[in-house]
Amino acid sequence: MIYLDNAATTLHKPPQVARAVVQAMDTMGNAARGAHGGALEASRTVYGTREKLARLFACQRADHVVFTANSTEALNIAINGILHEGDHAISTDCEHNSVLRPLYRLEEERGVGLDFVAADRQGRIDYGDFERLIRCNTKAIVCTHCSNLTGNVLDIARIGEIAHRHGALLIVDASQTAGTIPIDMEKMGVDVLCFTGHKGLMGPQGTGGLCIHSGVEIAPWKVGGSGVHSYDRHQPMEYPTRLEAGTLNGHGIAGLSAALDVILERGVEDIQQMEHGLMRKFYEGVKDIDGVTVYGDFAAPVRGAIVTLNIRDYDSSAVSDALSENYGIATRPGAHCAPRMHRALGTTEQGAVRFSFSCYNTEQEVEEAIRAVREIAAE
Amino acid sequence: MIYLDNAATTLHKPPQVARAVVQAMDTMGNAARGAHGGALEASRTVYGTREKLARLFACQRADHVVFTANSTEALNIAINGILHEGDHAISTDCEHNSVLRPLYRLEEERGVGLDFVAADRQGRIDYGDFERLIRCNTKAIVCTHCSNLTGNVLDIARIGEIAHRHGALLIVDASQTAGTIPIDMEKMGVDVLCFTGHKGLMGPQGTGGLCIHSGVEIAPWKVGGSGVHSYDRHQPMEYPTRLEAGTLNGHGIAGLSAALDVILERGVEDIQQMEHGLMRKFYEGVKDIDGVTVYGDFAAPVRGAIVTLNIRDYDSSAVSDALSENYGIATRPGAHCAPRMHRALGTTEQGAVRFSFSCYNTEQEVEEAIRAVREIAAE
Repeated sequence: MIYLDNAATTLHKPPQVARAVVQAMDTMGNAARGAHGGALEASRTVYGTREKLARLFACQRADHVVFTANSTEALNIAINGILHEGDHAISTDCEHNSVLRPLYRLEEERGVGLDFVAADRQGRIDYGDFERLIRCNTKAIVCTHCSNLTGNVLDIARIGEIAHRHGALLIVDASQTAGTIPIDMEKMGVDVLCFTGHKGLMGPQGTGGLCIHSGVEIAPWKVGGSGVHSYDRHQPMEYPTRLEAGTLNGHGIAGLSAALDVILERGVEDIQQMEHGLMRKFYEGVKDIDGVTVYGDFAAPVRGAIVTLNIRDYDSSAVSDALSENYGIATRPGAHCAPRMHRALGTTEQGAVRFSFSCYNTEQEVEEAIRAVREIAAE
Repeated sequence: MIYLDNAATTLHKPPQVARAVVQAMDTMGNAARGAHGGALEASRTVYGTREKLARLFACQRADHVVFTANSTEALNIAINGILHEGDHAISTDCEHNSVLRPLYRLEEERGVGLDFVAADRQGRIDYGDFERLIRCNTKAIVCTHCSNLTGNVLDIARIGEIAHRHGALLIVDASQTAGTIPIDMEKMGVDVLCFTGHKGLMGPQGTGGLCIHSGVEIAPWKVGGSGVHSYDRHQPMEYPTRLEAGTLNGHGIAGLSAALDVILERGVEDIQQMEHGLMRKFYEGVKDIDGVTVYGDFAAPVRGAIVTLNIRDYDSSAVSDALSENYGIATRPGAHCAPRMHRALGTTEQGAVRFSFSCYNTEQEVEEAIRAVREIAAE
């Protein structure tokens, strides 16, 4: 199988990752519960992983790195824990339902005001819109670093500057960029970074989290056992315990830790450059094929390793099935949980076929994918 | 290390579990996202695991088995999704903070009425109290199947009968019993069973879930990507998608699936009998040692494989440290996130040392633990 569905989950992980998970399953107790060897090893592994994530994203404090099951949970925690009744938030058409649905729910349940920066037919936004939409009660801008549909990257530093100039917080969905495009929370002005472990970070599924800037207050989400302050009726207010009730996925975090070693050693810039090359090669190979429509902004110097396209008026699921069955190429069709972006692109009916690359893909795989698209388009 | 902290997390898993996790990491895409081989394999594994859990717990519908990161998340979902303003709930002194803190929060934030069935100095409850505390607006009884501190097992079938006679739902925390004491949702009248994967089920950390009886409505908790109905502003209302936004821990679930094969093949009764034997042997060996106080009801025919004790007035953490450092025995001291139970036992200051057994422990390990307790008590 030629796996080009890395924006959903990366399949090829560094071999150290599975080894670390197995080792953790053989030796690890419950982190922050007890003081015997197994429990201490779990606590050390978990804390070490916080430190690596803080280093990777330039998060000031390792104890402000909070683990969750995935970025959806991280986004729910950030959005629900920051936006309260009477607040206003700005988001964009580029968002995944993991941002949209929590916001829509707050609009209904807490009367949170919402505005969205519109995307054009190439999925681009006008940064001036953030200025125009901001209000005196704007509490936060919530936006993705990279569209999971078009691969367009948003200029987070520019949005951060606007947010902070107006006293608002910036919550960023880094699901598509953590590990593949450099992120510096300090330089980019990110207050809360929500990430997942199983995509560009190449860790196991069931891992993800938030990196929280000092001074940002997020109300607890799930509450329960904390291993400390057990007689308090409330969840302890210290990070990370404030947002981490229950037993952590220590086994998965151990795998993520091993993946982070590989990424920190190699450097995100190097991974980015390689993936960008594969993406550009594929784009150049398919963009002029008769009947192929590619979506997104390919003039931008920085973008995710995603090329999304349609072939004539063929249903995207049928094309993805043909790629899988006839060519052994894994892609993803349909809506990609990005309803506003499909409306902007005019692809709500057809969906679109997404090719997403990782640093473990090869030029030969890209060539085979180009050939497959050419052949399907010629049918 | 002699690992006797199985009530926190089981360390010894069947070897098939780690193998299944590794295989999943090598082959598995994102469940319910796309239709290529990797994604389909993930979907099949996840659904197969739902079926095994439904079979293990006699849950009528496999599609009503919902995956979460742990039982704390499952309990938060059940409690927050069922109890609304004006409702009343009954719980017990036997609960873990994963039940207590969500309930206390609803009391503050939604005005949910709360009453607790008291425990005596042996951690026993009077079932007549449920009848006495029930009101016309009692929406649910929320209680543990087995105290994580004393190992006392509650008569869930009896509580279920009382709940249903008064039109209330029964939400059960099976953190300490799933996989080690038989559970039949139908026969016991359980409406929502909350379980974790990494304790008695011997699966990886980062797994757990809810089994929901047909007709029980639980409001969505986290919302976001669902892979279906992407244009709807709301989370889809079909189970399990209703409660499962974001990418599942497919790798961990694959490991849980392998563990369930072992448990279903061996039979929970057999595991229960073996663990009960180890627990009884330890109890008989320590109960009469001068200076040792054992907590809990050991006259009951059914109980968890837990023996919690103190030695003289020694701080429980000091005893646990001595067990770890001088004997290589892993136990857990302190509060165990069970504040009401410690108040009932009169151990809030001292905490208590918990010895918890699994089917991978041996009689020889039990004998060594008895010897260690005897020696520490003689100091």
